[in-house]
Amino acid sequence: MNPNLIEYIKRYVNISQSEIDLFNLYLKPKIFKKKEFLLKARQTCKSRYFITKGCVRLYYIDDKGNEQITHFGIENWWITDYESLINKIPSKLFIQATENTEILELPQVIFEELCFKLPKIEKLFRKIMEKTYIASQKRLEYMFSQSGEEMFNHFITSNPEFTQRVPQYMIASYLGMTPEFISKIKKNKK
Amino acid sequence: MNPNLIEYIKRYVNISQSEIDLFNLYLKPKIFKKKEFLLKARQTCKSRYFITKGCVRLYYIDDKGNEQITHFGIENWWITDYESLINKIPSKLFIQATENTEILELPQVIFEELCFKLPKIEKLFRKIMEKTYIASQKRLEYMFSQSGEEMFNHFITSNPEFTQRVPQYMIASYLGMTPEFISKIKKNKK
Repeated sequence: MNPNLIEYIKRYVNISQSEIDLFNLYLKPKIFKKKEFLLKARQTCKSRYFITKGCVRLYYIDDKGNEQITHFGIENWWITDYESLINKIPSKLFIQATENTEILELPQVIFEELCFKLPKIEKLFRKIMEKTYIASQKRLEYMFSQSGEEMFNHFITSNPEFTQRVPQYMIASYLGMTPEFISKIKKNKK
Repeated sequence: MNPNLIEYIKRYVNISQSEIDLFNLYLKPKIFKKKEFLLKARQTCKSRYFITKGCVRLYYIDDKGNEQITHFGIENWWITDYESLINKIPSKLFIQATENTEILELPQVIFEELCFKLPKIEKLFRKIMEKTYIASQKRLEYMFSQSGEEMFNHFITSNPEFTQRVPQYMIASYLGMTPEFISKIKKNKK
């Protein structure tokens, strides 16, 4: 198994080598070239993805035809469209590689079987979901309480590598701003 | 055990009467009068709460001294401050009963033991977290894509009973609006 995923799992649950080996049987390594899609809108999302290399973005097309980025994912993050995966409904989201990306795919169809064989994986994903939810709550709180400029500064301070890896217009979309607004903030800083 | 909680659990996992009885041993019934606090800011949240009767609000005091409501909870909802509970840090939130409220408290200190004895409860809370996360993502999406008026109309259509049970200024706070803005929307409707 990918050493980063082993380290990741061990942060949440005590797991033995034989259990890691069993979990590994359920993971399918896949490679996506930059701009390739892991998922397209109207498809039903069928897997959770652990990113071992690269970067992806999750976005939807809004009523006005604009791309609205909801999330990014980089190395050592699990990403999926939970609404489509759990409710088994067509996704509104596109998941697209913004760099050449390598992932480990955990298909939902075998997820319950895995949890049955290895209850620690159930615990792992319960804890991952709690952390993911906490992050989403903090994001909501920032949207309530911070100005656009504060949100941008908070984002680049908390996620310095994104500003190197992701074009500015994508960061603008994630923060619900126009690229022009971000250019203005940066200009004011100078 | 409260029949609504049994029904709630059965929506997520297959559970026997003896397992329900075991789970029930971990739950403490509590009563809060209207305006009483389940949690105050600076306390560390130590439990998950299942509401059997009544209504609570979760809110924080922002930099300007205003109350910002982050969530409501009514019958058959689990609520807690996940950030404080999971990270074992002082809460920024107040959890206050907005009606006379009855809850079942599941203390975190015995939660892991319960999950060990009853792995189905681990599964239950993994699934609850997924649904809770999906709801928070939809809320974020509405904040991105809807106007204030659309958000208000969507809220009252999706949660008709809240408008009966919760004062208008609390709904305004939850939606990040002023009470005056909501009065204006209502006036325009007429």
